Amino acid sequence: MKLLNILVLLVLVGLCCGQYMERLSRRKRESCFPESTGTTPFIKEIFLGRCLELQTETAIPNACPQSPVNCTLLWDVFHDAIAYKDPCAIPLDAYREFIAAVPHQLPADKSMFWSGTSYIVHEYTEAANDLLTLEDTLLGYMVDGLQWCSSTDASSTGLNYQECPDFWQEGCAVASTAFYTATSSAIGRQATGVITVMLDATRTDGAYRNDSFFAKYEFPNMDPEKVTRGDIILVNRLGNPIVETCGTGSVAVLERLFTEKGIEWTCTDNDERVYHVQCSKDPTHTECITPADVTGSSATSRPSLIILAMILVCMVAELM
Amino acid sequence: MKLLNILVLLVLVGLCCGQYMERLSRRKRESCFPESTGTTPFIKEIFLGRCLELQTETAIPNACPQSPVNCTLLWDVFHDAIAYKDPCAIPLDAYREFIAAVPHQLPADKSMFWSGTSYIVHEYTEAANDLLTLEDTLLGYMVDGLQWCSSTDASSTGLNYQECPDFWQEGCAVASTAFYTATSSAIGRQATGVITVMLDATRTDGAYRNDSFFAKYEFPNMDPEKVTRGDIILVNRLGNPIVETCGTGSVAVLERLFTEKGIEWTCTDNDERVYHVQCSKDPTHTECITPADVTGSSATSRPSLIILAMILVCMVAELM
Repeated sequence: MKLLNILVLLVLVGLCCGQYMERLSRRKRESCFPESTGTTPFIKEIFLGRCLELQTETAIPNACPQSPVNCTLLWDVFHDAIAYKDPCAIPLDAYREFIAAVPHQLPADKSMFWSGTSYIVHEYTEAANDLLTLEDTLLGYMVDGLQWCSSTDASSTGLNYQECPDFWQEGCAVASTAFYTATSSAIGRQATGVITVMLDATRTDGAYRNDSFFAKYEFPNMDPEKVTRGDIILVNRLGNPIVETCGTGSVAVLERLFTEKGIEWTCTDNDERVYHVQCSKDPTHTECITPADVTGSSATSRPSLIILAMILVCMVAELM
Repeated sequence: MKLLNILVLLVLVGLCCGQYMERLSRRKRESCFPESTGTTPFIKEIFLGRCLELQTETAIPNACPQSPVNCTLLWDVFHDAIAYKDPCAIPLDAYREFIAAVPHQLPADKSMFWSGTSYIVHEYTEAANDLLTLEDTLLGYMVDGLQWCSSTDASSTGLNYQECPDFWQEGCAVASTAFYTATSSAIGRQATGVITVMLDATRTDGAYRNDSFFAKYEFPNMDPEKVTRGDIILVNRLGNPIVETCGTGSVAVLERLFTEKGIEWTCTDNDERVYHVQCSKDPTHTECITPADVTGSSATSRPSLIILAMILVCMVAELM
């Protein structure tokens, strides 16, 4: 029984940790600065640079804020939300003022939500060049992949650059939980027109999970008066057995929730872009074919067809 | 005759302009700041943020500078290279001090050179997650896609934020020419091990062109003592007729130049990743197939084979 408890706990911790890790790292890359579990070095400069950069070259057309953003002010609001607070007692509404200070910039029909598909969704929107994830909007872009937490040391800047609590530390409410809860809710509220959601159809715990950020904060905040349709895209992760398809399992649950909310929906099992994006990362995978393969296979099948036809003609000729 | 001269001039201007434009804009995106032909607003903050960001999450493993970079110092050196100078008389060696101040960070076997393939090369290296273009190294990353020029106004910061000279303005040597000439030469010199070069096989003016940055500054600076092999990847741009293949035309010229330099080489006509990266951007293109298409075609070809075989068996049976 004790072993079972430990196992259940490990699974819960794993799921919980996975949730955050997914939001926190678009792609795990090496830091050149000395290893630390603390706030990302130079987070302020990176935040400011990204805030200005997004306005210099915005990700997709018509995604500019209505007027230039005061990035220094945004940093101050972001910083003050948690500075000098107990790093394990950050209230879920800590970033309310920050959210209010960031201008909306989600054009209609351009929101991309996702859950369990961090390994492909950003490459997908980059290739499509027409959809924005939370991480592509000003709200998420400025701190995407970074880490931060507060320091209660009055002589510090209010942030702890030495160490941050583990995300899954029991009884610890960290800054990034508050941040992603609030920003997820915000982009749910801001979405208008057609929204897209990308889920993993090869997950054994379900493509649509009740405890995901999408299920908890994004979907519930969508306004059926503003959102006209939800397009579900299922990803069949290369090499993994397909667990769910459109209309089955947890995907059917989501489809029903859309209907109940009065929002039309579509669902796609075999999205062509999903396939090519996955194969562009892993082109030699057995599931990935190339035009050469196809030419090759038709070239080998054609002679056998021709030989058969010739034999047939010969035999018919002989019969006559 | 006059018309011919004008035509020749237009073609030359077009080629020259194309060269710079390609280096200058990874992807043309909308600026949220008021339109201007001057230096990118907040270029200093963006430069600093990117310099620090690249060290926080470096593009590929083992691409860190040996010690943390003083980014503010780098900006000063970059700025002082052209500040207060005539914006049309920037000497080609203006960025010599800047190049010297940026630490090398090209691991062996990781350099990706390119010419004429700006529309795909960065998506390719992003998907491969194992190769660095100039724009991915600290040298190029900090100003990739940005614009800058100097102001001779003593009361200014030394940069002109109102307007910059056109790149192709006759008799005008602009800052970006000096910058990309010097940085291209530098990454040519820094390359070690296996290098990769991606060229466009559908260009009517040749995949390998004598006037390209690759031909003028990168290839000539490669040290055959340090570079062990050159892998040429030809891109067949979707929907465009293939003009050159490995071993033909200007590609053969480059192959010979590698041999003459004492560097081994390989050449690939149908790179699988190139195909999938292109199709991930344009998945409904007629040249892009999906597993569903293949299943479909083999499903339709199989019955005809079976019918033929059955007819054959029937006829043989009748004969016996």
